[in-house]
Amino acid sequence: MRTMAVIGTGLIGTSVALAVSRRGVTVFLSDRDPAAARTAAALGAGLARTPAAPVDLAVLAVPPSQVGAVLAEAQERRLATCYTDVASVKAEPERAALSRAPDPDRYVGGHPLAGRERSGPLAARADLFQGRNWVLTPSPLTSDETFDRALELVALCGAVPVVMRSQDHDAAVAVTSHVPHLMASLMAARLREGPADLSRLAGQGLRDATRIAGGDSRLWGDILQANAPAIAGVLKDLHMDLSRLVPALDALATSGGQERDLGMRTLVDLLDRGISGLAEIPDARSRTSPEDPRVRVAVPGRPGELARLLAAVADLGVAADDARVEEVGPVEGAGSVVEARSKDTRGEGGADGPWFAVRFTVPPRTADRLVAVLSAGGWDVVRDATVAAVPSGRRPA
Amino acid sequence: MRTMAVIGTGLIGTSVALAVSRRGVTVFLSDRDPAAARTAAALGAGLARTPAAPVDLAVLAVPPSQVGAVLAEAQERRLATCYTDVASVKAEPERAALSRAPDPDRYVGGHPLAGRERSGPLAARADLFQGRNWVLTPSPLTSDETFDRALELVALCGAVPVVMRSQDHDAAVAVTSHVPHLMASLMAARLREGPADLSRLAGQGLRDATRIAGGDSRLWGDILQANAPAIAGVLKDLHMDLSRLVPALDALATSGGQERDLGMRTLVDLLDRGISGLAEIPDARSRTSPEDPRVRVAVPGRPGELARLLAAVADLGVAADDARVEEVGPVEGAGSVVEARSKDTRGEGGADGPWFAVRFTVPPRTADRLVAVLSAGGWDVVRDATVAAVPSGRRPA
Repeated sequence: MRTMAVIGTGLIGTSVALAVSRRGVTVFLSDRDPAAARTAAALGAGLARTPAAPVDLAVLAVPPSQVGAVLAEAQERRLATCYTDVASVKAEPERAALSRAPDPDRYVGGHPLAGRERSGPLAARADLFQGRNWVLTPSPLTSDETFDRALELVALCGAVPVVMRSQDHDAAVAVTSHVPHLMASLMAARLREGPADLSRLAGQGLRDATRIAGGDSRLWGDILQANAPAIAGVLKDLHMDLSRLVPALDALATSGGQERDLGMRTLVDLLDRGISGLAEIPDARSRTSPEDPRVRVAVPGRPGELARLLAAVADLGVAADDARVEEVGPVEGAGSVVEARSKDTRGEGGADGPWFAVRFTVPPRTADRLVAVLSAGGWDVVRDATVAAVPSGRRPA
Repeated sequence: MRTMAVIGTGLIGTSVALAVSRRGVTVFLSDRDPAAARTAAALGAGLARTPAAPVDLAVLAVPPSQVGAVLAEAQERRLATCYTDVASVKAEPERAALSRAPDPDRYVGGHPLAGRERSGPLAARADLFQGRNWVLTPSPLTSDETFDRALELVALCGAVPVVMRSQDHDAAVAVTSHVPHLMASLMAARLREGPADLSRLAGQGLRDATRIAGGDSRLWGDILQANAPAIAGVLKDLHMDLSRLVPALDALATSGGQERDLGMRTLVDLLDRGISGLAEIPDARSRTSPEDPRVRVAVPGRPGELARLLAAVADLGVAADDARVEEVGPVEGAGSVVEARSKDTRGEGGADGPWFAVRFTVPPRTADRLVAVLSAGGWDVVRDATVAAVPSGRRPA
């Protein structure tokens, strides 16, 4: 791929152009606001003019409702040999492409899973898509050549291709993106009607929970409209959950006895369902699986020793708060267990109190690193062995 | 303050103990789980034993529903001369203190606005409260000495004291903390029922929006129960908002014409209300006020120049995406305007195209830094002056 066109030099379009320009592709930029295209060009994203011959791939970085019309217009003037878009809704643009575009076989839908709260070319970054998923939704008509060009675009941007049907994509983003955006907006809207001192009680949790509400309201209106059926379905489920939650809180506020107990059970059940739902989000810190190896490290109860271990572990990028401290107890029989103990302090724990066994449940790769670095750092590590019970003040040979 | 007791060595209690221990205070640690207190001691948070004489201040780091009973018990055995707590709900503990504690004048409610998703002593950090607000809610009975000790605790932890009535605190945290937690739980719970490919579409936005749902469900059940009346009120408002939103999405999904337009208006109106609500959150990136100074920098339209300015500005910690690019137009008359232009490139812009005027709306302190560093870095900065119109290719003398 040697030449590309980007139509729409907002955040996503300019970021795509910056990324592929750095890889040697010549990019032609356009936007219905010519100043935005010139701004992108001034950032080094490409040339703010029309190509003389059809380019290898045109990327339509326009709102979902405009993909169909912009695609038809671009194909009519033979802007490119292949086309993709980056809209965050996929079924409606695909439908429009199939019904309106002169060459629907030369179009494949795309959605890079990256964004920022800010919009416009100045927010763009060449590395915006690095390591992110980029969904491609080929239609039954999409040609192999078109699909390959889109895969090359994804690779040039450093992203990971994920192939899905457009309808499946839309059902998923309703839950993962669109409804969370609406909920964040609903919560942020409540802040205006709260008590006066409210802003002094706003912490990082609120900031995180409402951040996505900050996007451009017209663009988001367009996105949400294009996926309205799927969103409406999820919203109705949420509305029903909330209809159960309100009386539960009412019961906790005003009732006693059995009604109150019932309210508490409804509440804690919801909280637990939420916690288990978090496991669906990859890389969320709460995610550990029962199959993950457990790394167990014995530490004497002397002040400073535990802090020393946690510091070493933090340097490895292992979250100390995934650990549990327990006094060393009965034999640990199940699973993959690693034992490490400090050479310097072996056998001396008894002078100051009981030993601790600190347990980390970590992904396999992290476990390997943990063992390797603890070994190198003077800790005595035994891998895949069961840890024998260690009475206070004595260590096994 | 020379001696302190911390009852409850979870995340918050242990963090308090670590912070004040570093400032030379002797801290006595206890927990209903003795292993947790020993763990905190092993981290250097203090001594896991009972003090021989009453300490200067006892910090009750227990769930809201237990503050009253733990306070009464501690005062009966003369653990300390003054008492405070760190529960995130304040009216119910105050009511319990006034009705049950032997010396209610020796208690003042407190709530440090800091936390992590993880709980337990191993998640504790000495700097957890650094720069954070710490609410104190003196009751009509609270003695000056008790209030002063609590203020000293806040200072030792590096936090900022905020004094409020307990009821006002609870009304505010219902909006800023408790309802966002419940909404995050509701959304995270939906993830379990979504389509199979859902996890591949989960991005940073969803991660942020649901992170707070990860807390301990029993502790959060206790917190939410203790503030149930205020939370129920906010939930009802949210439920009503959602009751309007669902038919709007339904109209967008199925209707045409006027009904659809009405649905779109409801939707965009909600999104705009959310955006304006974000302004209530301090330090949120979206927050700029009309009174904030505007800093305007002129840049020639040559590729690379704009990128150079944005790089310089990014080094200052100024978000480049707060900028707007415009071709330099009519005289800028209103507000506090700062003009800067590059000495190296002055007068040469015309060779390659029009000049850009990049505008940043920044807090006053950032504006000062921006002007100072741009001046030092070779940019010609004019402060508080109006920027004259600059036709393409020419610069004013």
